[in-house]
Formats: sequence, structure tokens, C-alpha cells
Amino acid sequence: MSPVDIGRLQEEIDALAGITEVEPPAVTRVLFSPEDLAARAEVKTLCQAAGLSWREDAVGNQFARWTGSEPDLPPVATGSHIDAIPNAGRFDGVVGVLGGLEAIRGLQRDGFQPRRSIELITFTSEEPTRFGIGCLGSRLLSGSLSWEDALTLTDPTGRSLDSWLSDTPYLAHDRAAVPLAKGHYHAFVELHIEQGPVLETESLDIGAVTHIAAPAAHRIEITGQGGHAGGVLMPARHDALCGASEFVLALEVAARGSGSPDTVATVGVLNVTPGAINSIPAKVDLTVDLRDIRLESRDRVWQSALAALEKIATERGLLTTTSVINADPPATCDPGLVEAIEASAKKRDCTCRRLISRAYHDSLFLSRLAPTAMIFIPCRNGWSHRPDEFSSPAQIEKGVAVLADVLAHASMS
Amino acid sequence: MSPVDIGRLQEEIDALAGITEVEPPAVTRVLFSPEDLAARAEVKTLCQAAGLSWREDAVGNQFARWTGSEPDLPPVATGSHIDAIPNAGRFDGVVGVLGGLEAIRGLQRDGFQPRRSIELITFTSEEPTRFGIGCLGSRLLSGSLSWEDALTLTDPTGRSLDSWLSDTPYLAHDRAAVPLAKGHYHAFVELHIEQGPVLETESLDIGAVTHIAAPAAHRIEITGQGGHAGGVLMPARHDALCGASEFVLALEVAARGSGSPDTVATVGVLNVTPGAINSIPAKVDLTVDLRDIRLESRDRVWQSALAALEKIATERGLLTTTSVINADPPATCDPGLVEAIEASAKKRDCTCRRLISRAYHDSLFLSRLAPTAMIFIPCRNGWSHRPDEFSSPAQIEKGVAVLADVLAHASMS
Repeated sequence: MSPVDIGRLQEEIDALAGITEVEPPAVTRVLFSPEDLAARAEVKTLCQAAGLSWREDAVGNQFARWTGSEPDLPPVATGSHIDAIPNAGRFDGVVGVLGGLEAIRGLQRDGFQPRRSIELITFTSEEPTRFGIGCLGSRLLSGSLSWEDALTLTDPTGRSLDSWLSDTPYLAHDRAAVPLAKGHYHAFVELHIEQGPVLETESLDIGAVTHIAAPAAHRIEITGQGGHAGGVLMPARHDALCGASEFVLALEVAARGSGSPDTVATVGVLNVTPGAINSIPAKVDLTVDLRDIRLESRDRVWQSALAALEKIATERGLLTTTSVINADPPATCDPGLVEAIEASAKKRDCTCRRLISRAYHDSLFLSRLAPTAMIFIPCRNGWSHRPDEFSSPAQIEKGVAVLADVLAHASMS
Repeated sequence: MSPVDIGRLQEEIDALAGITEVEPPAVTRVLFSPEDLAARAEVKTLCQAAGLSWREDAVGNQFARWTGSEPDLPPVATGSHIDAIPNAGRFDGVVGVLGGLEAIRGLQRDGFQPRRSIELITFTSEEPTRFGIGCLGSRLLSGSLSWEDALTLTDPTGRSLDSWLSDTPYLAHDRAAVPLAKGHYHAFVELHIEQGPVLETESLDIGAVTHIAAPAAHRIEITGQGGHAGGVLMPARHDALCGASEFVLALEVAARGSGSPDTVATVGVLNVTPGAINSIPAKVDLTVDLRDIRLESRDRVWQSALAALEKIATERGLLTTTSVINADPPATCDPGLVEAIEASAKKRDCTCRRLISRAYHDSLFLSRLAPTAMIFIPCRNGWSHRPDEFSSPAQIEKGVAVLADVLAHASMS
């Protein structure tokens, strides 16, 4: 029998989706917005109602612990995030947080007694919306980002992380206590929607993630010459948007021709200055998100895009600057945990395959601290980061059941 | 001797430039912003100090009148605008308003007695920033736009013109009194910086405008499929920004290949939704500004761009919608006024040529009410709509002197 109360979990997922900065069903919860803070408080309420002890750190990572019979042993952890990019859906991240809580409650209902404590973590700002960098909480927690560097971050209005933190309850906590030592956790397992089409296409219930692809993000500024749209003839123009458009297409060509089917490249942000209907674009700022499971092909695509950018700039008389937002190496999941996922799937008659995560996850950084694995469940059409993102109750139930099994297994080892 | 007190005029231009929503020297004054309202009040103060009588209408057009000896005759008018697009300069429009006032003051100092009254008009929202439509004031004044249609306008946040007007002193005035009858004015002459390089390149002082090019503005919405930047492989994508980029370049090619050197096409606004670094663009909204002195070549370029858009949409699996913001016919200036400009330039030893205005001006709409002409002065590098927009005091002085001559001439005819 399933240890999962899927009806209750679904209600909790739907209730959390109601805490949004935009018109439902779209979910927007940007780091430290009133809605992000309200959703954090809701998670705290649910965890405390389950009898879990509570801790927060200075960047807002939240820890809810079910104390094991040997509380001094390194605990087993699960978790994910609840922040959401503009106009996103209700499942990305949330399934790992509320599903993680339900896995713990299911084990409690079953009368399971963990040896190691089991901890549920809600990570701060997995999404990069506010500060342009993803996994802010798990980067700091894993020592992948220093406080010194984190405090240089500013949002698009110029407001600093420090200033944002000063409006939260997290300001009271010790910043030096955020980074955790290697070995602090015995294992980390994250449940997440796939955000890709593989499981749905192959009609599978569970994905056992073996690698998390290596993501890189870059910022590009293209500067041309502005002017009145009526006043400057075509041959005299240095239109930054025309140059940016050529770059967007060159990047697409480079990614499609990388030789690896796993290469993806995206320009997700593109801002035009001055952005007036009758003004020639003087400047374009854009971001590039580049992912691959192989560092070499990712880097080859980037070099090819940079060469195209240089050519465009020369031909059009534009100036360009590029800067790295992040360029993280890929992560490999722990073979023992991957096998535990497969064993649980088999026991529960769930179909399962190994796959690769092309999306960024907090697990990428937790893998630097502890043996880590991820459990994927299908989502409709592979869609994510949009209001119609969807995983069915039956799909979620299976993922939570497998997570409960793996947590139980790891907590006894 | 010059009738122009250029020192005082330059001081007034510089003072008005200090009323800006952004860091000087950049000037931003969007319709009915506190700064736009403050600049309007400043113009009123200066006009009243010159002894001119004052009237405002219900859309915020401002009229300052120097009453002639035959006050019942249709007056002669001059004027321009003082609103400024984001990060613009201090001369566009302002030279026509403050220069128009100085032309009147110069004639007063010379002891000139006009037969017809001379009126200085400050038009509301020549720039399209707030509502996406240029020449809002002169369109309504000339009957080219009805109040019924004007009141359907909304700004990017959804706020209506009606709502904006309710925060201004203009709400008190009769809307039915805004449109003026044909023949209300005997003549209209606008002084303006060229916003193009012709006069500077040919080292000329004065441009006598014979035609105002036919501008058209369109809005395009391109809808694709969003999704997580890591989760959707390249062949499965329907990236709205990649499609938009192809369109930007197709429009550029169409404008360059129109067969007319006067065709200009600009995508000045391009907004990406959701606009997150790790999200595939689901939707792009952009604007097209298209100008030509020949309606046929303008329309040919637009048809060619639309055909490209359709092909892009089909190939990439995107949906597109287009809508017309405006598509006004070109205007021809009054031959008698053009000759009066040339005669004045000759008398004052100013070099002068006839030319075409490729930029939109309130004169385009005033020409539907009255014989109209425009006086252009050079601006550095042809630049406009940018903080380093510049016309020298000597250049401005010549333009104002010619304007004074033409106003005097027309007021006696």
C-alpha cells in the first residue's frame, strides 16, 4: 500500500500555488517578495504541524528535522525550492519540498523509526530571477559561493542582497554558520519534475538521475548608436538590436550543430535601450544559458558563439562585452543511491530508467557535500516554467513513495 | 542685427533640461509624469512673463497668444512639444517651443505690431512613449483622432488616458472644444532640429521642409512555446525570440532593399516573456516603425516584412498577430511658407536648402488644418533621441531669427 496521502499533498500543492504575485494559475514567487516570504511561512507551519524541529540560516535556507534514534549521526536530507520565476507553474521545486514533507509524514504514519535524522531543506532562490544567479541558497550552503561574493550581488534595480536580507527574519542568523562541512549530511535525495519530455514520451513513472548537466550562464552587452528612427538612414545605422538578433540566431545554429543532441542554448533575457518605438536601439543586454552533459561540447558552442559575436560587432560597428554569470561543472549522482531508487521503483511496480538532468538543481551543489541523487517524475509535454506545467496526482504519488523508500533506506545505513 | 537673445534662450533650454526623470544630461519627460507637468508649468510661467494670454485644452495642449491688431482674423501659430522619450536630449521639440517664444519676444523687442495674433502651441505627447501613439495632442486638435478612440488608449500598465487626465488640471476643460476647425489658423510654422545628418553634412544653416515622410507604426506579437531552458532539446523548441530575431533581420533587409534610399525601418521596442535567464522565450512583443516619403515603397517594404514573418512563423511553429498603431499619409508643406523661409534665410545670410522630414512631427497633423511649413536647423551627427543630441547656440539663433521673420510675414498677410 502507498504510504502517500496524495489527496492531502495535492491540496497543499494547490494552496501554495495560490500564494502568487500574478493571476492564478500562473505562479510567480521571486526571492523575498511578500509572496515568497508567505510561502516560506506556510512550509514552516506544515513542517511544525508534522512535529519536525525547525531551523533557518542567514540566507533563508529552511531546515525541518525528524530526529532519528541516533541523532548524532549525519542526517539524511531531502528538499528542493519553492521560489518560482515569473509566470511559472506549481510543481517545479514544490513537489520536492511538499512531496519531501509527505514522504516523512508517510514514514511516520507507517510507524517507521529512522536511525539517522531525516531533514527537509527548502533552499533559497534556486531560481536566478532576483540576482541573476541560480541556487543561491545551496551555493552558499555548500561553500560554492562565499558570502563575500554573494554580498556583491544586486538585483536589476541595483538593490543588494544585503538590503533584501535586512527585510527578512534571516538577518538575525549567523552568516558564518551557513556553509556546512563535507560529511555534514550522510546523503541527499531530491524529488523533482523532469522538466523535459523523456519520461512522458517513454511512458515511465520514475527517472533515476545519474548526472546533472553542466550549465553555464553568460551576460552580453551590445552597444551601437541610437538616434531617431526617422532621422538616420539605413546605411548609417549601428543598430544594437539588429546585431543582437544576428547573435541569437548564431547561438541557435551553434547549439544545433554542436554534434551533441544534449546541447541546449537559450537567450532568455533581452532588454533594449532606450526601448522606444521611434528610437534606434542603442544598447541590448542579453543573457545566454548554455547546458551540456559534456563540458567540451558546451565550451565549443560558446567559443563558436563568441566568434560569431565578434564578427557581427566588426561588420556592424558595435561594441560588445561579455561576462560569466556562472559556469559550473557537471555533477555525478551516487551509484548506491541511484540503485536504491531503482530498487524502490521495482518493489512498487513503477517503470523506471536512468537519465540525465539538463536542468540546474540544488542537488548540483549538495553533491559537493554528500552522496546525492535525484528522483524525476514525468511532467506533461516536458513543459516547465509556465503556468500549464503539470504532473498528475498518480505521478506525484509514485515519486513521493520512492523518495520515502530511499530516505528510509539511507536513514538506516 | 539678430532679434534673438540667444544667451537667455540657451539658459531657458538648459533650465528645462534640468526637469528630467533621469540623471542629467539625459532628459526623460514622459507624458503627464511629474516632470512633464513641471516642464509644462515652466513654459506657462515664461509665456505669461512675456505678456502672452494663456489657454489650455482638455488633452493638455497649451496655447500662448500675442494678440494682433486684428484679433478676429485667424492667427498664425508656431510651436512644438516638450515631452521627451527615455534618455533623450534637450533640443528635440524644445527648440520649437522655447525658440518660438523667443521669436515672439524678439518681435516684441523690435517693436513689431502683428496684424494677426501669433500663437505659441505646446502640443501634448508628440512622443509615443506612454500610449504607443505619437502626436496625441495634434491628432486630437486636428480631428485626426477622435476622443472616442483616444479614450481607448492604455499605457503598458493598463492605465487609461482618461485616468491619467484625471490627475491633471486639463480634466476641467471641455473635450468637445479640442478639435479646431479647418481655417482656425492662417498658417502654422514649426522650428525643429533636423534629427538627421543632411544639414550638418552640407554645412547648411537652415532646412526648408517641403514634405513630411509618411510614417507607419505596427505592433507584432509572436507566440511560441516556453519551457525550461535546460529541459527542452533544440529540435523540440518553438522559441519566440529566435523567430523575432529572424524578423528583425528580415525587416532590415527589406528596408535596405526597398529601392528608395529614404526608406527606414526600426524595431525600437522588443519585450520578451517571461524574460528569465533559464526560460525559453514564450512570447515576444515588438514594434515596427516604418517611414518613407513614398507611400508605395513604404507599403512594399511592409508587405515584404509580413511575408517574411509568415514564413518564419510557419517554419518555427509560431503564432503571430499584427496590428496597426498608425499609418498616416505624408504631408506637403505650403509653397508660400517654404518660399518665405528661403527669403528670410537669404536676407539673413543663412545657407539654406529644401529637404524632407523623415521624422514625425505635430506639423504633419497641423497641415490638415492650415498651410504649414517647418524650419530645420542642423544637429550634431544627425543625432537625436539621445543625451548627446546637440545644436549650437549659433545654429539655434539662426533658426529662431528665420522663424521670427516667417511669423511676422504671415501675421501681416
